[in-house]
Amino acid sequence: MHQVYNYFGYIEKKLYCEEVSILNLASKVGTPFFVYSKKAILDKINQYKEAFKDYDTLICYALKANSNLSLLKIFEENGLGADIVSGGELYKAKKAGFSSNKIVYAGVGKTDFEISYAISENILSFNVESFMELDVINEIASKQEKKANVSIRVNPNVDPKTHPYISTGLKKSKFGIDIDQALDAYKKAVKLENLNVVGVHCHIGSQIMDVSVFREAAEKVVDLVFKLKKEGIELKFIDMGGGLGVKYHPDDNPPTPKDLADAIIPVVKQTGLKLIIEPGRSLIAEAGALITKVIFLKDKQEKHFVIVDSGMNDLVRPAMYNAYHHVLNVQEKDEEMIADIVGPICETGDFLALDRKIGKVERGDLLAIMTAGAYGSSMSSNYNVRPIALEVLVDGPNFKVIKEREDYKHISKYEEEVL
Amino acid sequence: MHQVYNYFGYIEKKLYCEEVSILNLASKVGTPFFVYSKKAILDKINQYKEAFKDYDTLICYALKANSNLSLLKIFEENGLGADIVSGGELYKAKKAGFSSNKIVYAGVGKTDFEISYAISENILSFNVESFMELDVINEIASKQEKKANVSIRVNPNVDPKTHPYISTGLKKSKFGIDIDQALDAYKKAVKLENLNVVGVHCHIGSQIMDVSVFREAAEKVVDLVFKLKKEGIELKFIDMGGGLGVKYHPDDNPPTPKDLADAIIPVVKQTGLKLIIEPGRSLIAEAGALITKVIFLKDKQEKHFVIVDSGMNDLVRPAMYNAYHHVLNVQEKDEEMIADIVGPICETGDFLALDRKIGKVERGDLLAIMTAGAYGSSMSSNYNVRPIALEVLVDGPNFKVIKEREDYKHISKYEEEVL
Ligand SMILES: Cc1ncc(COP(=O)(O)O)c(C=O)c1O
Ligand SMILES: Cc1ncc(COP(=O)(O)O)c(C=O)c1O
Repeated sequence: MHQVYNYFGYIEKKLYCEEVSILNLASKVGTPFFVYSKKAILDKINQYKEAFKDYDTLICYALKANSNLSLLKIFEENGLGADIVSGGELYKAKKAGFSSNKIVYAGVGKTDFEISYAISENILSFNVESFMELDVINEIASKQEKKANVSIRVNPNVDPKTHPYISTGLKKSKFGIDIDQALDAYKKAVKLENLNVVGVHCHIGSQIMDVSVFREAAEKVVDLVFKLKKEGIELKFIDMGGGLGVKYHPDDNPPTPKDLADAIIPVVKQTGLKLIIEPGRSLIAEAGALITKVIFLKDKQEKHFVIVDSGMNDLVRPAMYNAYHHVLNVQEKDEEMIADIVGPICETGDFLALDRKIGKVERGDLLAIMTAGAYGSSMSSNYNVRPIALEVLVDGPNFKVIKEREDYKHISKYEEEVL
Repeated sequence: MHQVYNYFGYIEKKLYCEEVSILNLASKVGTPFFVYSKKAILDKINQYKEAFKDYDTLICYALKANSNLSLLKIFEENGLGADIVSGGELYKAKKAGFSSNKIVYAGVGKTDFEISYAISENILSFNVESFMELDVINEIASKQEKKANVSIRVNPNVDPKTHPYISTGLKKSKFGIDIDQALDAYKKAVKLENLNVVGVHCHIGSQIMDVSVFREAAEKVVDLVFKLKKEGIELKFIDMGGGLGVKYHPDDNPPTPKDLADAIIPVVKQTGLKLIIEPGRSLIAEAGALITKVIFLKDKQEKHFVIVDSGMNDLVRPAMYNAYHHVLNVQEKDEEMIADIVGPICETGDFLALDRKIGKVERGDLLAIMTAGAYGSSMSSNYNVRPIALEVLVDGPNFKVIKEREDYKHISKYEEEVL
C-alpha cells in the first residue's frame, strides 16, 4: 500500500482504510459516513503511553472531540481516563465503562443537576472554573453528605497561537480563574467543608503546533503549586489539559506526544505531583475520514463545483473556523481539476474545501475528507433536517458499524409525540 | 403590558410571551427552552397574505428556518405552502399536512433517493440548480413513469448586501444556474421527456434589509421569462425565494411584507404569471426567544461573564455569523451591568452576546435571547453531548410543549444499539 494519510492509502488506485476498501464499505453502508481506523487510534494511544511512561501520568481522553461509545470503549480498554464537560458526556463515559476515579470534569457552566450527578458518581475531580462554582459544588456535596474532589482551572494567560475560537487560556477568555487570583480561590476552597482540594488544572487551547507554549503554561502552574505549598495547601496532581495539534494539511508537521512530554514533564517533575493530560483531537482526528459521494458537477463561468452528499451539518469546521481538511479521491484519477467541494445545504458557508485541486471526479465518485475524526461527528447537527451520518470502525480486514444512520422518524420523535 | 419586542413584554417587571409569564413557564419546563408566540406567527402570516392578496401568490414557508412540526401545522392550516431542501424536510412537511401541490423543493445536492421520494409525492416543483440535475430528475421520473415538474433556479447576480455565508445569488455562488446560461438550461429541459417545465426560481440571500435588490432580481427574472416566451417556452410561475430581513437589533428597521410586495409585484405582473415566495426567517424569527438560566457569574479583571445554561449548540448564529441577538432580562432590574453572556461549551466561540448591557443579574435569573425563532432550533446540535432544547408554543394565556427535552438515551440511541 502506498501510504497517503496515516492509515488511509491506495491499493491499485483505490483508497483503503487499513485493509478495507472504502468503495466496498460505501456500497454496504451508503454515504455519507465517518470511518475510523482502529489501528490509528491504538497507535496514538501507544504513542501517548510510551511518551509518558516514565512519569506517573493519567491520560484522560477528551470526549468532546468524539464521543462515539465504541470509540470510547477503545480508550477505556486501553487504560485511559475520561475528560468530560457535561452530564451527557458523563453518561456516555459511564456507558463506555470508564471508572469514576479516572474521570475529570471541566466546563464553565455546570448545572446543579450535572454537579449532583457527578458527585453521586464520585468522579476524580471537578475542574472548577469560578469562585461561585466552588460554593455551589460545596453546597450540593453537603446535601449529598459527601466531599467533592476539586481542582481549580487556572488561566495562565499564555497565547497558544491558534484559532481565536479554540484559544482558551487568555485573560479575556471565559475559562478558568486568572492565575493571579488562583491563590485566593484555593484559600477559599480549602475552607469549604465538603470539598477535597486535589489538584490544579489548565487548558490553553487546541490545535497547538508549538509545544513551547505548554512548557510556558506548565512553568506558571508549577510556580503556583509551590506558592500553594508555602501556604500549606498540598495538591495531588497537575492537569495540563489537551491541545496537541494534528495534521490537517499535507505540509503540517504537528508535534508528537513525545514532544509534549519532553516539554512538560521536566517542569512538572519539580513538584513530584502526578500528571494528568486531556488529549482529544490528537487521539482521534487523524484516525477518521468523512466519506461522501459526488452528487452533481456544475461548471460556472467563474468556478467549478463538486456537489457532495455531505455538508456543514456533518462537518462544521470549514464553515465555522474556515478550517482546512485535505480531500482524497477514493478512486485515484489520472487527470486533475480545481473545484469548490460543497454540500447540499442552503448556505454559501456550506463548503468542505474551496479552490481545491483533486483528481477529476464524475457523478457517483467518492471523496474522503481527511482528518475528520475529531470535532466532526461530535459537532454534527440535523440542519436542513439531514440525518446524522453513520459511523464505521475498521479493524484490519474487518469493519463494524458503530453508529447507525439516523432515520427521519428519530429526528422528529420529540415533535411527533406532542403533535 | 409595556410591549418591548413584538409579543414579548413586561408586566410588573416580569417578561411575558403573550399572556404567559416566562418565569412560570421556566418553573414548569426547565431551561433552556425556545418559546414561540402563536399570535406573532399568525400576524406575520396575515401581513404576508394581506400584502400579496391582490396578486395570485403562493406563500411557501421555508422549513429550513424552523421545522418544528407544530409550527409547520400553523403555517399549513393558514393556507401556506412549503419550501423544502431535503428528504427530511419533505417528510416533515407531509407529516404536518402540507399538500404536495404546494411544495417546492430547492437545493444544490438532491440525492437520487430524495428526488425519487419527491417525485412519488408529486410535488409542485423541483427548483433545479444545475444542468446535470435536469438529466437525473428526468431519468428517475422516467423509471417511475411520471413527469416531474421543474423550475430552473437562476442566479441573477444581484448583491443582497448581507452576510457572505447567506448571500446566495452571486455568480461565484454554488447556487442556481447563471442567468445568462438559463436559456440553454430551459432549452435542454423542454426536450427531456419526463420533465414538465413549470417555472423559474431565484433566491438571492437572507436577512435582506433593502427591498430594492428584490426588484432588481425580479427585473432580471422577468426579462428571462419574456426571452423564454419568444422561444416558445411558456411558464406558469415565478418563484422569488425568501430573504426578507427581521429585527435583531432594537435599531433595526426591516422592510415589511408590504414593502416586498410593492417591490416585486409590479415587475412580475408584466408577465401575468403566478407568483411564489418562500419566506422563512421573516415568518418565524421574531416570534421566538431562547430562554436560558444564569448558572454562574464571574468577574475577571478585564471582563464580567454571565454564564448561562444555553450555548452555541442551541443557537449557533453568534458563533457562526457573529450575529447580534438582543438580550432581555426575564425579571426587569434597576441596576445595569456590561458583560459577555456565554454558554457552557468548551470553546471561546461559545457566546450569545459580547460586551452587552443588560440588567444586573444574579445566579438563577433568566435571560431571553430574542429573535431566536429562525435558524435557532433548526441548526442546533448535540455538541458536548448536550440535549436538544425543549420548545414551547404560547397561545394567549395557554402554552403547549411542542418538542420534548431530549434525554441522554435518545442522544446515544444509535451508538448504544451497536455497542
Ligand atoms: C478543558 C479541556 N480539556 C481538553 C480539551 C481537548 O483539547 P484537544 O482536543 O485540543 O486535545 C479541551 C478542548 O476544548 C478542553 O477544553
Ligand atoms: C431557496 C431558498 N428559499 C428560501 C429561503 C428562506 O430564506 P429566509 O429565511 O431568509 O426567508 C432560503 C434560505 O436560505 C433558500 O435558500
